[in-house]
Amino acid sequence: MKIIKYPQKDSWEGIVRRPHLDLSQLNATVNGVLSDIKENGDKAVRKYEEKFDHASLDEIEVTTEEKEEAMSLISKELYDSLVIAHNNIAKFHESQKFDGKKIVTVNGVTCWQKSVPIQKVGLYIPGGTAPLFSTVLMLATPAKIAGCPEIVLCTPPDKEGRVNPAILAAAKIAGVERIFKIGGVQAIGAMAYGTESVPKVYKIFGPGNQYVMAAKQQVSLHDVAIDMPAGPSEVCVIADEDSNVEFVAADLLSQAEHGVDSQVILITTSESMLDAVSKEIELQLKKLPRREIAAKTLENSKLVLVHDTDEAIELSNSYAPEHLIIATKDYEQLSEKVVNAGSVFLGKYACESAGDYASGTNHTLPTHRYALAYNGVNLDSYNRKITFQYLTEDGIRSIGQAVVTMAENEQLEGHANAMRLRMDSLK
Amino acid sequence: MKIIKYPQKDSWEGIVRRPHLDLSQLNATVNGVLSDIKENGDKAVRKYEEKFDHASLDEIEVTTEEKEEAMSLISKELYDSLVIAHNNIAKFHESQKFDGKKIVTVNGVTCWQKSVPIQKVGLYIPGGTAPLFSTVLMLATPAKIAGCPEIVLCTPPDKEGRVNPAILAAAKIAGVERIFKIGGVQAIGAMAYGTESVPKVYKIFGPGNQYVMAAKQQVSLHDVAIDMPAGPSEVCVIADEDSNVEFVAADLLSQAEHGVDSQVILITTSESMLDAVSKEIELQLKKLPRREIAAKTLENSKLVLVHDTDEAIELSNSYAPEHLIIATKDYEQLSEKVVNAGSVFLGKYACESAGDYASGTNHTLPTHRYALAYNGVNLDSYNRKITFQYLTEDGIRSIGQAVVTMAENEQLEGHANAMRLRMDSLK
Repeated sequence: MKIIKYPQKDSWEGIVRRPHLDLSQLNATVNGVLSDIKENGDKAVRKYEEKFDHASLDEIEVTTEEKEEAMSLISKELYDSLVIAHNNIAKFHESQKFDGKKIVTVNGVTCWQKSVPIQKVGLYIPGGTAPLFSTVLMLATPAKIAGCPEIVLCTPPDKEGRVNPAILAAAKIAGVERIFKIGGVQAIGAMAYGTESVPKVYKIFGPGNQYVMAAKQQVSLHDVAIDMPAGPSEVCVIADEDSNVEFVAADLLSQAEHGVDSQVILITTSESMLDAVSKEIELQLKKLPRREIAAKTLENSKLVLVHDTDEAIELSNSYAPEHLIIATKDYEQLSEKVVNAGSVFLGKYACESAGDYASGTNHTLPTHRYALAYNGVNLDSYNRKITFQYLTEDGIRSIGQAVVTMAENEQLEGHANAMRLRMDSLK
Repeated sequence: MKIIKYPQKDSWEGIVRRPHLDLSQLNATVNGVLSDIKENGDKAVRKYEEKFDHASLDEIEVTTEEKEEAMSLISKELYDSLVIAHNNIAKFHESQKFDGKKIVTVNGVTCWQKSVPIQKVGLYIPGGTAPLFSTVLMLATPAKIAGCPEIVLCTPPDKEGRVNPAILAAAKIAGVERIFKIGGVQAIGAMAYGTESVPKVYKIFGPGNQYVMAAKQQVSLHDVAIDMPAGPSEVCVIADEDSNVEFVAADLLSQAEHGVDSQVILITTSESMLDAVSKEIELQLKKLPRREIAAKTLENSKLVLVHDTDEAIELSNSYAPEHLIIATKDYEQLSEKVVNAGSVFLGKYACESAGDYASGTNHTLPTHRYALAYNGVNLDSYNRKITFQYLTEDGIRSIGQAVVTMAENEQLEGHANAMRLRMDSLK
């Protein structure tokens, strides 16, 4: 861990900078697979599943029997937990429903927005040793609440061609019916272009490794929208002298165990807290099954000492973390000053894992300083706000001349004429 | 114009398909300019302004004197029109302000969203013979209402190094203070990377030619967000036997005059309307100053006859037009069935030019079938909805065990531990 005490402001850029993430060297490989999927559909999907997931698939789509079997394979405890998480995620995302108001901007001119669900969406869930069934809840629950009529989920099978039962259970709880056993670049291609089995979608959501990220970037240039650009996960914790040392250390470690490229930063106003957290991390680290990954991440992590919590929040805003835990006693005032972050956790009990799983907020969040311009997945991500307008005769009288004048000055006589004809009809 | 009568549904894809738009052949040129700007800043900006806009610039930023002079150079009529348009745009976008509600998802767990403006935004306004001052109002007005603290506008100068006075007047009315005389790829690069004069921004908005579009796409891969992918402008008009022939023809032509790659489609339930519009277009076309452009566009335009308005709206939804004018008598019922469009104009008086200039809706809209997944620029485009959460001791009791169970099943022991420590502290 790098300990940085009272850094000068002109050195902040070095503290907040992320490692350069260039996916373009993967483009040749990725584009090869994408083109093959585009051209050869299911046949190519099967080929790459054989090659990359070592799975020989007869049926690409998960069957009803497989889904039913999955429910018997997971523990009651896990099922109940998924239901609790789903209820909270549903309640929070339900509350985000948008009701467009009709606005009379000027006499006779009424404008409004209407939120309309994207008609076809695709969700990608990575596989591997730790199946991210929580991400199924995070992506599918708002898609159902938004009312997207067609929801497709792709996730890689194991060598026996089976999908992890917890993923299938989460999909059932969230209401996703069409699940395909496809992983990696081939999954992104299948959803972007469509195959004989997999419907083409209009927007693709979900995390993945560098190849998946590169594939999402590629297809987003022409074919579909994507949820957001991605990068390694990260947390920033702001602590003062009264923060709970054990909690702070555990929160930093819970991020560090994600992957060796994760980013972990502590910003504190207390030198003794900095020392204590540093020691506590060493203690807790020893007990973690994923300690090798976490230890590697910690090599690049930073513990930063600043003068006061205002400076702390300013540095955090410059860092623009995916997750921000404000564990100071003045968390309420500090929370008002947050301008760049994905999701913010306030006080001693709001640990990142609460939001990762079950509090109700979404865990698909902007990393890699993308929080400067992007927010996390929310109900809006599955909708478009289409604008509508209606004009009466009075509306033409209110804005007709302004439209004609502006169109003439932009030398667009056809635009002026379309309004002039309406004005003339009222004479 | 291509006349298509009662097309079979399996031929719709041919009707709605857009010409393939591949900007990648421009990438070498575009990347060359971008790298140069990134490396050499203002010096490179000046070089490309000399080369592409034939303008030799001492000062890159527009001065107070130039802005004051501009106000004396535009007519009172244009100024008044800009103020009318600005008022309506402001009123509609003000109404889009978001007030996040605090939601108790479960006992002791409170989650909410807060809308926070993007701190630095860049607006690009193309120059040329017809300066798009209306786009200044459309992009800058919501940026100001959102409260973006730093707003930068770039627009190309003429050969004498001057910016069109209508653009400066619109910027003043909308409240934009920092305006730079930079066009094309060099403007996108300057805002994406920052130079000695131009501040780096986090999101870039605005239209442009193919080079500008390619540059926006390139910088969006790593450095900044952009408003949306772009393509040629387009309109779809749905008409029945009672629609006003002159209005329909004028609306189609107002789109056709934009550029030779514009897209224009009429969908009608009436064969006589189809014939009448076709003839009226020929008449009106002769009077248009931009008739050569419009005539070229019309070669690729389509007049489609369908059986009823339900089929019309279904075809329109498949087309996903940027602008949709519903000029039928059942426009109200049809409007309920719109699922894919950028902006919708209802009834005989709501012409596209109303929304292009002054009704209050935004005219920066998704083209090229991007309306399937994107909406137009609105107040949300300048904000991020950051999520916050707060847990009490009861919150830990409500979701603690579910979090631990899910984390253990995802094999993320560090995540489980962060929650378990909180649970233990309450025992």
